[in-house]
Amino acid sequence: MKMTDILIVGGSAAGVTAAMTARKFHPNAEITLVRKEEKVLIPCGIPYIFGTIGTPEKNLIPDAGLEKNKVNKVIDEVVSIDKGAKTIATSGGETIGYERMILTTGSLPFIPRLPGIELDRVFPIQKDVDYLQGLLDTLKKVKDVVIIGGGFIGVEFADECRKMGTNVTVVELLPHCLFLACDESACEQAETRLAQRGIRTLANHRAEALLGNGKVEHVQLQGGEKLKANAVILGIGVTPNIALAEKAGLQVHERNGIYVDEFMRTSDSHIFAAGDCTQKRCYFTGRPSPLRLASIAAIEARIAAANLFGLRRRNAGAIGIFATQIADLALGSAGMTEKMARKADFEFVTGEASAPDKHPGCMPEMSDLTVKLVFDKNTGVLLGGQVHGGATTGEVTNFIGAIIQQKARAEEIATFQIGTHPALTASPIAYQIVNAAENALEKMR
Amino acid sequence: MKMTDILIVGGSAAGVTAAMTARKFHPNAEITLVRKEEKVLIPCGIPYIFGTIGTPEKNLIPDAGLEKNKVNKVIDEVVSIDKGAKTIATSGGETIGYERMILTTGSLPFIPRLPGIELDRVFPIQKDVDYLQGLLDTLKKVKDVVIIGGGFIGVEFADECRKMGTNVTVVELLPHCLFLACDESACEQAETRLAQRGIRTLANHRAEALLGNGKVEHVQLQGGEKLKANAVILGIGVTPNIALAEKAGLQVHERNGIYVDEFMRTSDSHIFAAGDCTQKRCYFTGRPSPLRLASIAAIEARIAAANLFGLRRRNAGAIGIFATQIADLALGSAGMTEKMARKADFEFVTGEASAPDKHPGCMPEMSDLTVKLVFDKNTGVLLGGQVHGGATTGEVTNFIGAIIQQKARAEEIATFQIGTHPALTASPIAYQIVNAAENALEKMR
Repeated sequence: MKMTDILIVGGSAAGVTAAMTARKFHPNAEITLVRKEEKVLIPCGIPYIFGTIGTPEKNLIPDAGLEKNKVNKVIDEVVSIDKGAKTIATSGGETIGYERMILTTGSLPFIPRLPGIELDRVFPIQKDVDYLQGLLDTLKKVKDVVIIGGGFIGVEFADECRKMGTNVTVVELLPHCLFLACDESACEQAETRLAQRGIRTLANHRAEALLGNGKVEHVQLQGGEKLKANAVILGIGVTPNIALAEKAGLQVHERNGIYVDEFMRTSDSHIFAAGDCTQKRCYFTGRPSPLRLASIAAIEARIAAANLFGLRRRNAGAIGIFATQIADLALGSAGMTEKMARKADFEFVTGEASAPDKHPGCMPEMSDLTVKLVFDKNTGVLLGGQVHGGATTGEVTNFIGAIIQQKARAEEIATFQIGTHPALTASPIAYQIVNAAENALEKMR
Repeated sequence: MKMTDILIVGGSAAGVTAAMTARKFHPNAEITLVRKEEKVLIPCGIPYIFGTIGTPEKNLIPDAGLEKNKVNKVIDEVVSIDKGAKTIATSGGETIGYERMILTTGSLPFIPRLPGIELDRVFPIQKDVDYLQGLLDTLKKVKDVVIIGGGFIGVEFADECRKMGTNVTVVELLPHCLFLACDESACEQAETRLAQRGIRTLANHRAEALLGNGKVEHVQLQGGEKLKANAVILGIGVTPNIALAEKAGLQVHERNGIYVDEFMRTSDSHIFAAGDCTQKRCYFTGRPSPLRLASIAAIEARIAAANLFGLRRRNAGAIGIFATQIADLALGSAGMTEKMARKADFEFVTGEASAPDKHPGCMPEMSDLTVKLVFDKNTGVLLGGQVHGGATTGEVTNFIGAIIQQKARAEEIATFQIGTHPALTASPIAYQIVNAAENALEKMR
């Protein structure tokens, strides 16, 4: 029987980050990562395979990080865990003993119980190279694609399919695309841009059935309208992959995932878990959170791997920080939107500022960049921010995310020193984050 | 005699921001801004007039902010202040009474006492539209330009002159270009990029004299080498413009500027000052700081204007946060470099991480982005960071600047939640700020 000090099950964002972090804390430990995929896809890169990258083979997490950190890589599927014996068994017939384990088994696409869901050319997004190559081959030869779900994945697939010249319709149950992540004005910006790209969006619409003979041919909406569809892509979320943990007798919640405490320990003190497979709590409210992001997975892995042989790091709860892009419009969100703050019963004040992201505005490749911040009215502490603009949108969103975690107050942000440069940022007079805080402060006085 | 509640002298980054901020705090006050320029240049945009924007007329601070905030604009030069009577007199013969004043008289280019400095076609950077139009006209017709000073301004002028097709040589007294702002490896990156652009840099060289007959023809270096020069640009720093304050009997320091306390009050409690004209203290050490940046000016103005009729905001001291660009390489720095930390007797640890700024690395327009962080070894608190990369460099630098001000510790940064997107940021596994903190933590253990 093989033995390893640290065993990691799963090889995506959480698994790789867990292995690399464990190595930093344990220079001499034997670290083994078992994953079933020969090649691991970059999860957030998947939509970009279709119109930008051109092949799943170029959207892979390189194994260099594992090799550099002397992590044993085993391509095999873990089929069972014996917590008592501290061993796992693989489908390849191996048994591996461990001192500590980190489960990073990820998530599976949610597949709704729609009539016709079993038809050919109906594609949930499976994180598998051959499967996505098949999807790519199909998309290259079809004319009409319907995407069910107008969240980040749906919107990104829509934009990419459009780049391939396909007719695209997005069907979204909620009042707007991106409605769970952004406030209405940002959603509307996104929908306008989708329309300009020639993408049809049907918000407030429910797909009721998929129709076809062998292959899907139409999507039937509630109310009876039928949309032509040579292919259907499902982008309606994921469910945590808990089968292995559940079978091993670890505490799980069917919808929320594997139970973990703030140190990322499961109900077995030698088994940790991180990423999409785990339960999450909201940073702001402490309530269960549906967030599933590669970036959260990576941070949970950094926490889990640091705690294996001594508790060093705590998980403060999940803050949704993300960005997307539709044509040349990027949208980002960190923490609470106005809508979320209202729903969570915060008393809040918002502030907003908009300015060119270069200065003067005639600098080449200028985009307008808008920042909206949401503050707790009683403490002045930042709860969230939304950004839309150009190439810097992702990092401006991360700036906001970081100062949320530092519990920055409006007054501090309004006097933040920032650096400015004509080709790289807004002007010092117009800098959006600072001015959005000033705008909110005006309303607090 | 005119009367105004709030009088602002000067109309650049500090003046405009002071006026706009004063309006937020005093919705009904009479606010008057007196400036001598009909048109005000965007200071950091000045180098970009030459190879990118094409005319000073497109590099102006718009008056819209003043108009929107109902600020009276007076184009005139303030020639004296009567502190006792609380009035100013202008060269146009006006007298204006004030309740509170904010001086934002800026800085003047430092002009070295070099033999030949009075020759024609020797250009200090005056912030004046007609003057810069003259410089532009000259640069369009000359072949060889020597730039004395390899700081930000010198390097940016070099890159822009090169875009005009001019032969450019940069003469820098210190061991590297950008030596006061960046650690050596970043300086070397910059110099490599300058060389690739066909710009000659002579670090460790002193310009000893300017030679010519009426017009400058050569720059003579210490040691005797002569550089051909149809024009010379001086980019060797600025001196605070304190003449008016000094004449009024306000406390000033000839080299450091107008004395201000942490509330931005001068030695007269009804007169505030902000921007390049004021003394600055280093955020980290409390010592006098030579930093002169439009972004610092704007923040000082936000502080001064908030405090006019009641003390609301304190100046924590100047943190140098800035970015520049040479060809497609952007460089940024926030707070202390390793060199500065050493000089200030901090015990420090650095951490570094480099990764593509998009993921996978084959995404279009990818640049590698490197982050180096400097931490106080005893407290783990972030002291500074340097960045070089592509279009997001300025905002990544601002992210670092913000968390310096929030006194973030390495351990917090290593578990920062961040958002990632293929087209907008590094991958969650490789995110540079987080990994640079992890790298530093390894060295602290």
